[in-house]
Amino acid sequence: MRGLEALGEKGIIRLIWEYLDRMPDLVLDLGDDASAINIDDGRVAVLKTDMLVGETDVPPGMSLRQAARKAVVMNISDFAAKGVKPLVMLVSLGLPRSLREKDIRDIGAGLGDAAREYSTYIIGGDTNEASDLIISCSLLGFSNKEEIISRSGAKPGDIIAVTGKFGRTSAGLKILLEGLSAPREIEERLKEAVFIPKARLSEGLALSEAKVLSASIDSSDGLAVSLYELSDASGVGFMIDHVPIADEAVRFAEIHDLDPYNLGLYGGEEYELVVTVKPQLWESAKRAIAKVGGTLIRIGRVIKERRIELRTNGEIRSIECKGWEHFKMRKP
Amino acid sequence: MRGLEALGEKGIIRLIWEYLDRMPDLVLDLGDDASAINIDDGRVAVLKTDMLVGETDVPPGMSLRQAARKAVVMNISDFAAKGVKPLVMLVSLGLPRSLREKDIRDIGAGLGDAAREYSTYIIGGDTNEASDLIISCSLLGFSNKEEIISRSGAKPGDIIAVTGKFGRTSAGLKILLEGLSAPREIEERLKEAVFIPKARLSEGLALSEAKVLSASIDSSDGLAVSLYELSDASGVGFMIDHVPIADEAVRFAEIHDLDPYNLGLYGGEEYELVVTVKPQLWESAKRAIAKVGGTLIRIGRVIKERRIELRTNGEIRSIECKGWEHFKMRKP
Repeated sequence: MRGLEALGEKGIIRLIWEYLDRMPDLVLDLGDDASAINIDDGRVAVLKTDMLVGETDVPPGMSLRQAARKAVVMNISDFAAKGVKPLVMLVSLGLPRSLREKDIRDIGAGLGDAAREYSTYIIGGDTNEASDLIISCSLLGFSNKEEIISRSGAKPGDIIAVTGKFGRTSAGLKILLEGLSAPREIEERLKEAVFIPKARLSEGLALSEAKVLSASIDSSDGLAVSLYELSDASGVGFMIDHVPIADEAVRFAEIHDLDPYNLGLYGGEEYELVVTVKPQLWESAKRAIAKVGGTLIRIGRVIKERRIELRTNGEIRSIECKGWEHFKMRKP
Repeated sequence: MRGLEALGEKGIIRLIWEYLDRMPDLVLDLGDDASAINIDDGRVAVLKTDMLVGETDVPPGMSLRQAARKAVVMNISDFAAKGVKPLVMLVSLGLPRSLREKDIRDIGAGLGDAAREYSTYIIGGDTNEASDLIISCSLLGFSNKEEIISRSGAKPGDIIAVTGKFGRTSAGLKILLEGLSAPREIEERLKEAVFIPKARLSEGLALSEAKVLSASIDSSDGLAVSLYELSDASGVGFMIDHVPIADEAVRFAEIHDLDPYNLGLYGGEEYELVVTVKPQLWESAKRAIAKVGGTLIRIGRVIKERRIELRTNGEIRSIECKGWEHFKMRKP
């Protein structure tokens, strides 16, 4: 009989689904970033829940205010990937008995920060005693069936692109969890990437409104895992020819003799969007995202064969499906 | 600086709300059993989240399958109280590393049991490692503004009524948590009340559809606390002249020389509805609930003065505001 580690997150979810009846006519496949149901002609209600757990999601040095903000960002990012505005949110808390009034205020402040940052409202919730900090958020929004972007629409020939550079949080987590050092000016920025992650909501909404994407996912489990998820959902592969890595991460890799590609591909807790775009819509997509101050970086193209390869400097490397997955990685 | 115990659940919620912007035009007040927003002419989206925590919500002897089912029932009961059909649900899990495949199957089976029992669908969720079992559910449903029943509509002169008898879970918890004994034939029924609680969904939907209620709340924090909540929200008081106590609880009280009223009033984890009805609608209300096999038991009347009294056998006793509240009561 397997334990949780052997099952992995996906195995656990598969087991549970064996016991649940499928709702007919779901707008997004099970396993997409969010869930969506038809509510009337063309309109869909979109839902998402994601739980922050102190032990696995709050690295040393992160304040409670930042943790509460992050719990919201994790959820907003999935709505960003689907191109859906988060209208309202519920927050369910598990609070260790050791917390004091000041801590509760910090949690409140972090939730308030995030709600204002992403123009959503917290309208309810639940409070409980628990042995570890738990912040479970649920989002509701509405969209149109033709504007919501699934993971499953990528087609061979499409361009695959991302909304920002990778590697900062991998490097930041190596500083926070493994005690690696970095020059002060980059250490702060790497830690900030972990402590104050940003969801690409304006970008996701702009791309959805412009109707330029064929598929989209967020990169919260790391770029490599997101590519595999997108590949599975769309039944395609990717030829990646560029992994945009943040300057600070490149510098950090040099200092510690690390492969910068490993930092960029196999991280997690990074909330960029990974999207596919038909070549003829590429310029429109770039314009749409530029209008909200964002950027779209081409990283390769969608191919028919279901393999994911990285081609750089004439060399082909395979990209492995690894990164952050609960039950497989935890704080040391 | 106060700790969680001194703050209490309500104090914690108040603190957090200090940091959150209020959404304008909410259909239900903050603190009602569920949250509701206007989505278009007269239609409202209704949301609820409630978290089950192993340490405080799963008494000894309750199986994982029952715990998972209970996590759903806790949420459904609030929808029942608002008279709203739960359309879809998300489930966010925190799973201790010690769980095995069999345990995950039990949780899946319990979630599936509950979803079928209340004709709703689980359409998504999230899985995490946590130090204690956490099952956080979120429900979405739709209603009309004039059909949703708040806590705040009770008016002096209304009849106050409940959908069933009380005291079974108090007695059951005394058996499970304090080791009190009971004759086998009633022990099983008292434990079952704790292990397999029922939400009064058909009853709530029937009463809402018949438009006969002026206010409604569920009794998950105990009958006394629910009366106080209803009193606070509606700005009224209650003269209670009858507390319907289950036969098994009366018997249990006799055996252990307990006051049966204490079992009936100050319990919790009981999911009856506590509703108010205009006298001229009382017969319609009884007919509406009888149609779905339910029952409505008159327990007293709404009074203008904001006090809650129990008048039995010519004697007046005051009802205290106590019962189950997280951070104030826990397993021994």
